[in-house]
Amino acid sequence: MTTVRIVGIGCHPGQLTLEAREAIAGCDYVIAADKGPDDPLLALRRGICADLGVELVAVQDPPRDRDPGLGGADYDGAVLDWHDARAAAYGSLLDRRPGRVGFLVWGDPAFYDSTIRVVDRLGVPYDVLPGVSALSLLAARHRVVLHEVGRPVLVTTGRRLADEVAAGHDNLVVMLDGRLQATLLDGDWDIWWAANLGSPGQELVAGRLADVVDAIRAARERARDADGWVMDTYLLRRNSQS
Amino acid sequence: MTTVRIVGIGCHPGQLTLEAREAIAGCDYVIAADKGPDDPLLALRRGICADLGVELVAVQDPPRDRDPGLGGADYDGAVLDWHDARAAAYGSLLDRRPGRVGFLVWGDPAFYDSTIRVVDRLGVPYDVLPGVSALSLLAARHRVVLHEVGRPVLVTTGRRLADEVAAGHDNLVVMLDGRLQATLLDGDWDIWWAANLGSPGQELVAGRLADVVDAIRAARERARDADGWVMDTYLLRRNSQS
Repeated sequence: MTTVRIVGIGCHPGQLTLEAREAIAGCDYVIAADKGPDDPLLALRRGICADLGVELVAVQDPPRDRDPGLGGADYDGAVLDWHDARAAAYGSLLDRRPGRVGFLVWGDPAFYDSTIRVVDRLGVPYDVLPGVSALSLLAARHRVVLHEVGRPVLVTTGRRLADEVAAGHDNLVVMLDGRLQATLLDGDWDIWWAANLGSPGQELVAGRLADVVDAIRAARERARDADGWVMDTYLLRRNSQS
Repeated sequence: MTTVRIVGIGCHPGQLTLEAREAIAGCDYVIAADKGPDDPLLALRRGICADLGVELVAVQDPPRDRDPGLGGADYDGAVLDWHDARAAAYGSLLDRRPGRVGFLVWGDPAFYDSTIRVVDRLGVPYDVLPGVSALSLLAARHRVVLHEVGRPVLVTTGRRLADEVAAGHDNLVVMLDGRLQATLLDGDWDIWWAANLGSPGQELVAGRLADVVDAIRAARERARDADGWVMDTYLLRRNSQS
């Protein structure tokens, strides 16, 4: 009998919840994708498992065709193929080693993460424990609420940002933006930007977008130098004073 | 010298993070709004503070004119007045009792919470620690991602739902909806609904909106009976199969 727990671990080890710790400690082992020799999220998961005395089994991540993600029409198809390949790799491990199995999701599984969709293909009972999301950490570090009083916030991706703004959105959280798409926008915007939230190389910049673009570019490089990778998350709000 | 920490506590005590526990335990006292004799969030905060050995000081919450929230043009003004009144009450306490002071925010301070805006008026140094948001818990309990692959999600309020849908949104998380505004929508929608997330009276219903409206209404009453209050959060997605 195999059961799976998908556990959001927040953005650094101090953000583990009590229930997440108990859930991980109660697993027979944790499965983690291995994306290569310097995978920072794998190292983070190894540290958590070592701390809680649980074995981590690294599974070579199937190759993913990332090109379609940058504008191609085959994006959805490529993602689904990749989900299938991951599910096949995990399923074969579960067949060999049934038991109580954990998956640790950086941040929270509810936003731009494939773990629920992959595990759902495995046909085993599973539950999900939430974690502190990168959105929440972005807001906390900048000490902002992600929307004006009683107003909405659109959570979207760098790839879609230009279209969302063209559709009239003026308060957006942008995730998965590897190319700083905000700098391509017209108009007057305020930005609360972060790279590598929760990591040693974390960087924060806030201000009027036009005034802080250079500071963001420099901070982005510092984050990459410090951590060996860079991931941006930011809140973008049209400046209504202008 | 007074410093303030705004701490997201998640949606039940098991969702406290390690850093949140340490932050609360390091406070001289915690300030909590007292909204009346049966305030469930005050009781929750009392339990956390007792567990961590920190004094809780309850401050009578200023009266809030809630009527403008339900369609009135004075909504923003009423909210700002209420923020000012809360800030005045807290500021006077800080003057009498300077020190390291905590505020515990149910869920996460980034979404539909006034604490950051109120504390910002106090003119004292403060920081913010994120918590597990009700959005994340909603998604976890229903084992869903809050958006389709690579797509956006709009986080909004019940009060604005009809307008957001009229503007073309087809994937929304609705918070602060005391009147189940989703039932007024035309069209074919799927809903992942919850009441009282993280509380003993928590209720979950998912399905095609038209098919589960009665189940939601009944679950809503059960949640109110169990907890003495009811708060809805739900994901609403237009059914693209129809």
